[in-house]
Amino acid sequence: MTDIAMIRAARDRIGNHARRTPLLSSPFLDEIAGRRLFVKPECLQLTGSFKFRGAWSAISALDEETRTRGVIAFSSGNHAQGVALAARMHGVPAVIIMPADAPRMKIENTRAYGAEVVLYDRQKEDRDAIGERLSAERNLTLIRPFDEPYVVAGQGTVGLEIAEQAKEAGIARAEILVPCGGGGLTSGIALALEADAPGFLVRPCEPQGFDDTARSLVSGQIERNPAMGGSICDAILTPAPGNITFPITSRLCGSGLVVSDDEALKAMVLAFTRLKIVVEPGAAVALAAALFRKDEVKGDTVIAVTSGGNVDADLFSEALRRFG
Amino acid sequence: MTDIAMIRAARDRIGNHARRTPLLSSPFLDEIAGRRLFVKPECLQLTGSFKFRGAWSAISALDEETRTRGVIAFSSGNHAQGVALAARMHGVPAVIIMPADAPRMKIENTRAYGAEVVLYDRQKEDRDAIGERLSAERNLTLIRPFDEPYVVAGQGTVGLEIAEQAKEAGIARAEILVPCGGGGLTSGIALALEADAPGFLVRPCEPQGFDDTARSLVSGQIERNPAMGGSICDAILTPAPGNITFPITSRLCGSGLVVSDDEALKAMVLAFTRLKIVVEPGAAVALAAALFRKDEVKGDTVIAVTSGGNVDADLFSEALRRFG
Repeated sequence: MTDIAMIRAARDRIGNHARRTPLLSSPFLDEIAGRRLFVKPECLQLTGSFKFRGAWSAISALDEETRTRGVIAFSSGNHAQGVALAARMHGVPAVIIMPADAPRMKIENTRAYGAEVVLYDRQKEDRDAIGERLSAERNLTLIRPFDEPYVVAGQGTVGLEIAEQAKEAGIARAEILVPCGGGGLTSGIALALEADAPGFLVRPCEPQGFDDTARSLVSGQIERNPAMGGSICDAILTPAPGNITFPITSRLCGSGLVVSDDEALKAMVLAFTRLKIVVEPGAAVALAAALFRKDEVKGDTVIAVTSGGNVDADLFSEALRRFG
Repeated sequence: MTDIAMIRAARDRIGNHARRTPLLSSPFLDEIAGRRLFVKPECLQLTGSFKFRGAWSAISALDEETRTRGVIAFSSGNHAQGVALAARMHGVPAVIIMPADAPRMKIENTRAYGAEVVLYDRQKEDRDAIGERLSAERNLTLIRPFDEPYVVAGQGTVGLEIAEQAKEAGIARAEILVPCGGGGLTSGIALALEADAPGFLVRPCEPQGFDDTARSLVSGQIERNPAMGGSICDAILTPAPGNITFPITSRLCGSGLVVSDDEALKAMVLAFTRLKIVVEPGAAVALAAALFRKDEVKGDTVIAVTSGGNVDADLFSEALRRFG
């Protein structure tokens, strides 16, 4: 199980290979949020999402003989790119299993990072089964997207940075809003902040119809989403919280926040206008919650993680046309 | 005249009020550029451009009595926003003279930062004369956009950061490509790097038809642009290099690089796709030069400054549609 020592060790292994993303802010966004709002733009991370951190952490933790045989991952796109690039930087092969309806850019980038891409049907096929079969056949090590302690530890390095940067900015208490799919980023940040910034409360953020974590936190047990498609927030459409991540989020996080797809798009447009960053829909749900669910957030400071920026130009233009 | 001591003093006055922007990169951009390419994204600076640094530097250097009476500035938009916000953060009034055809967002933001905005006709009126009349009438201090030693010193803090960040990244020699209008940013960076990174060469970058600095560097004297409009690169359409800035660029910079408007738009789109940052056309000319004038750049490492991100949504969408 991931703990703070594993997160600090992951940071040491990551070193300068990943980017330390800044904290951004805008007086215009503060005004909408009704409080001080900071954004941790993991869209500026290598491969355009925080997933590179977890991928690096997991691959760098393998013993050399295992690592040399190669890795395999399944992902709607951001974990795919993270694993593909981290594998390439380690000089080892990667096979990535992706849904055929993943954004075109994510599939193309994963191939461009040198990985072998295997596509599957998100509605009909079980990606876990495909992953386990291929990893057995080729003797590859499966790098799970969130239910893997070393991956959670890597994502937790975002929390270490938030704690440091908040301290530099004089922030002692804040709610930390985090886009939540399987809960790898959420649980990693929550563990890091438990140790380094105990006045902070992590709140998982999800799109309407895919609020499995919010409902699980209410019921106290793992609840599943009824569907696997139908939101533009492709990056965070996972079936249910993870067996490793949920006990952590359940112990450490505040209640979940839920936003609509249109609110996520509006947050994307405000991030464009006010912060000059490119955020993908699923990665904009925490910023959307900070801006449009302000009555559900407490305190005078909120920090929203924008977890990725891998959005196709067509969708981005459409969002600008509708809400720009 | 600005020197390295003034730049270091400006950094001390700026302290944590401005943002230390990161260095970004992407293997996809390295491939296009044919060498290692780093981007210094000043679009992520407060107010969406580097201009905030110079504005803070100049306003913070005024004696208190002078500062309290207020400041005035003329600008196509980025200096306007920088002065407006820096004045507000100092608690002093600001009057900003802007061309009536400046991007809507820049005019609206300048007003939203609390400044009084006076519009003028870029083709028919002389903004310098208007600025000097108003500043005399109201006893305001004119903050010139580039031909002002404290402004150059503030912009030079970008160069101090580049030197530090390049050192951390192990870069000993590089060409530094800088979008150039009046030359405040270019000359400030050149002075900072002369002191802190003498292996670096600054190259001013301009749009076709507005290559006054490139031509001035060739002829050895200040050359003017034939027109004042007709490029989408509004941020850097100045009549001629400054009397203060040109002697610095002339002494320290390599030859200028010139790109087309379409190349600037393509660079904007690649910054969207590969770096997840929003860059405005005029601020994209240095990245465009790194990507599309690679035969005119020397060495194995180039650092391009993207100096601002204040672009209207319509123009950004159009660029994505044409080149995305």
